[in-house]
Amino acid sequence: MSITAGLVIRCKAAVAWEAGKPLVIQQVEVAPPQAMEVRIKIKYTSLCHTDLYFWEAKGQSPLFPRIFGHEAGGIVESVGEGVTGLEVGDHVLTVFTGECGECSHCKSEESNLCNLLRINTDRGVMLSDGKSRFSINGTPINHFVGTSTFSEYTVVHSGCLAKINPLAPLNKVCVLSCGISTGLGATLNVAKPKKGASVAIFGLGAVGLAAAEGARIAGASRIIGVDVNPRKFEEAKKFGVTEFVNPKDYDKPVQEVIAEMTNGGVDRSVECTGNISAMISAFECVHDGWGAAVLVGVPSKEAMFMTRPINVLNERTLKGTFFGNYKPRTDLPSVVDMYMNKKLELDKFITHQVPFSEINKAFELMVKGEGLRCIISLED
Amino acid sequence: MSITAGLVIRCKAAVAWEAGKPLVIQQVEVAPPQAMEVRIKIKYTSLCHTDLYFWEAKGQSPLFPRIFGHEAGGIVESVGEGVTGLEVGDHVLTVFTGECGECSHCKSEESNLCNLLRINTDRGVMLSDGKSRFSINGTPINHFVGTSTFSEYTVVHSGCLAKINPLAPLNKVCVLSCGISTGLGATLNVAKPKKGASVAIFGLGAVGLAAAEGARIAGASRIIGVDVNPRKFEEAKKFGVTEFVNPKDYDKPVQEVIAEMTNGGVDRSVECTGNISAMISAFECVHDGWGAAVLVGVPSKEAMFMTRPINVLNERTLKGTFFGNYKPRTDLPSVVDMYMNKKLELDKFITHQVPFSEINKAFELMVKGEGLRCIISLED
Ligand SMILES: NC(=O)c1ccc[n+]([C@@H]2O[C@H](COP(=O)([O-])OP(=O)(O)OC[C@H]3O[C@@H](n4cnc5c(N)ncnc54)[C@H](O)[C@@H]3O)[C@@H](O)[C@H]2O)c1
Ligand SMILES: NC(=O)c1ccc[n+]([C@@H]2O[C@H](COP(=O)([O-])OP(=O)(O)OC[C@H]3O[C@@H](n4cnc5c(N)ncnc54)[C@H](O)[C@@H]3O)[C@@H](O)[C@H]2O)c1
Ligand SMILES: [Zn+2]
Ligand SMILES: [Zn+2]
Ligand SMILES: [Zn+2]
Ligand SMILES: [Zn+2]
Repeated sequence: MSITAGLVIRCKAAVAWEAGKPLVIQQVEVAPPQAMEVRIKIKYTSLCHTDLYFWEAKGQSPLFPRIFGHEAGGIVESVGEGVTGLEVGDHVLTVFTGECGECSHCKSEESNLCNLLRINTDRGVMLSDGKSRFSINGTPINHFVGTSTFSEYTVVHSGCLAKINPLAPLNKVCVLSCGISTGLGATLNVAKPKKGASVAIFGLGAVGLAAAEGARIAGASRIIGVDVNPRKFEEAKKFGVTEFVNPKDYDKPVQEVIAEMTNGGVDRSVECTGNISAMISAFECVHDGWGAAVLVGVPSKEAMFMTRPINVLNERTLKGTFFGNYKPRTDLPSVVDMYMNKKLELDKFITHQVPFSEINKAFELMVKGEGLRCIISLED
Repeated sequence: MSITAGLVIRCKAAVAWEAGKPLVIQQVEVAPPQAMEVRIKIKYTSLCHTDLYFWEAKGQSPLFPRIFGHEAGGIVESVGEGVTGLEVGDHVLTVFTGECGECSHCKSEESNLCNLLRINTDRGVMLSDGKSRFSINGTPINHFVGTSTFSEYTVVHSGCLAKINPLAPLNKVCVLSCGISTGLGATLNVAKPKKGASVAIFGLGAVGLAAAEGARIAGASRIIGVDVNPRKFEEAKKFGVTEFVNPKDYDKPVQEVIAEMTNGGVDRSVECTGNISAMISAFECVHDGWGAAVLVGVPSKEAMFMTRPINVLNERTLKGTFFGNYKPRTDLPSVVDMYMNKKLELDKFITHQVPFSEINKAFELMVKGEGLRCIISLED
């Protein structure tokens, strides 16, 4: 039992007051966790495009003031009523989607789309009572995807926390909270290339490079990186990408270019762009008879996936994945262990590091498209 | 060695001289099999929509005169040079697609789209020498999909023959040559419903009912039949279909109707219509998280499969299959054994039977949409 248990905690948080305006680091009050909730002390958090997207609030109904952040590692400060399997001092990763353990999805071996705790970007409050645990002088501050990790303390539903090996360095494994696990799992859990397979990765951002890391771990013999931005190619070499294709260099569809390079198509493809034409190309570039494509990127609402049915009938498989099909509580601990066992390399994803006081620098880097992950340290 | 080996055989065949005109039963000459070919005596053959489609020759370049027929059971009369694994007297099923055993598809565990012997509806000749083995007074008669089973004797590539249990009644198992195996395999090999699963079958023709038979064998708890023709529902009850949906009875998309019936969607769907909107509905009616849809029907060339990418991203799987993913030579013998072991019911697919002399009746029945399979006996 920690001395703060049951009490309101006053601590620093980075509050977003307006769309696209720098976050303000200021004191907030963090209420104690309610039933099934956990309050944690955040040690390290990183910035992901989803934070940026909802902070910029282009094309969605903005919800401000709000505390963003969802990729983080922390330590349990106190637990609410009914919480099992987590106790004070446990090391945890926060996850923007959850695992209640009870619903049809949680009970299915295949799905991780928990009915209760599935990502909800519109909700700014906790599930149990529809209220926020954050306030400033009585004004509630909105949560973000149930995590709000840009704060020294935050309150999270216990189903959105993975209890991990306490020896794992939180300043590294915090990146497993979202994008890196998404790409890694898309390859390892969904595309499942066999040893020696050829794999095309569309989009060489952090998610795509994590998908490439998955292909490397699976023993793929060829990893073909596809990106419209040739600046991405140099960095991607570190991730085992063996060949590069820029669709803009050709006057035919990139799926045809890939089919020619691979005698009919790749064994697997993983799409990590969010661009609809890349999704279609990723599907059509896999070999008939056995090829499988996995979609990861989140497209615009108007986008329509279109292909000739013969491309399907010729025994191609199309799958989509959310969070790499990992069940957060059940599966993330073993992903952390993959890092601890040196099977999974994480350091190459971490290109920048800033103290919490300079969190806006992380946003600036991402807006400029520089680097992959910037770790924000709440330790300094 | 049979006494006719190496000689031209004169026998009766049903020759199609013109699109849509009754077949003419007349004497043809059947040349001996060349390298890798086998000449067989056809015992029973059945009629499938593919025969009808190319006989009607609407919308394709017609190839006449031609001997149609591809679903058949027969007995090896003689084998050409280099043929292994088949000898005089063996019982065989003909298959419109083949298995060379050597190409990348044949070597892949997953594919049955043999590079050498994949279905080719435009070719009227044998592969080895580009010539026909059929002639009438020196005029060559075209082959059809490498099988041409509407003849007392035919010549087939050895890769397009499955050697089966000689105790199996050829007047029953001949229907496993094409449509029935296609539907059955779509469910058992590709959709793979678990015991207790819910399965939607789109299209209750012979292929769809075979898919339903697969669902019954797999132990599905609910088999939902979807057809725009309510006349199909009565017959489908024999095939274990538990519920029926006619899309025309609703003013909302049938995928929504099915989602409401099944608390979010079926576990598996199999599309056996060839209609593009049924293909889209079949995909969108499966449950998110774990649902998988399998496309079987052959659509028009202009058709475009379209869906919102979110339907994929929510962890649905789309697959296509050709001939139920069965490798003809390797896998068909065990399908025949499933019938012999009374696991698979075939008799209910056989609704009519005619002697060879009345083969045009089989065409008339199919044009009228009556029955499922009409067996044409070459024994009488
Ligand atoms: N499903 C999930 O659980 C989940 C989780 C996190 C992120 N995502 C999604 O994954 C996608 C990738 O995320 P990220 O953080 O790596 O993004 P990112 O912007 O860093 O990377 C995307 C890359 O795709 C490239 N690209 C864009 N259009 C392309 C095209 N037509 N062809 C080839 N390359 C193209 C861009 O140049 C860029 O390098 C996003 O859509 C994101 O929303 C999904
Ligand atoms: N892939 C293969 O290897 C293979 C082999 C044989 C047949 N096929 C294809 O399978 C399909 C079915 O073959 P079949 O012989 O059973 O045909 P069929 O014509 O007997 O049956 C098709 C059924 O679909 C129904 N239907 C049509 N449009 C529909 C819609 N929008 N919604 C619901 N039902 C609809 C029809 O009423 C009919 O009952 C055909 O497209 C055929 O070409 C594929
Ligand atoms: Zn759940
Ligand atoms: Zn994220
Ligand atoms: Zn082959
Ligand atoms: Zn057929």
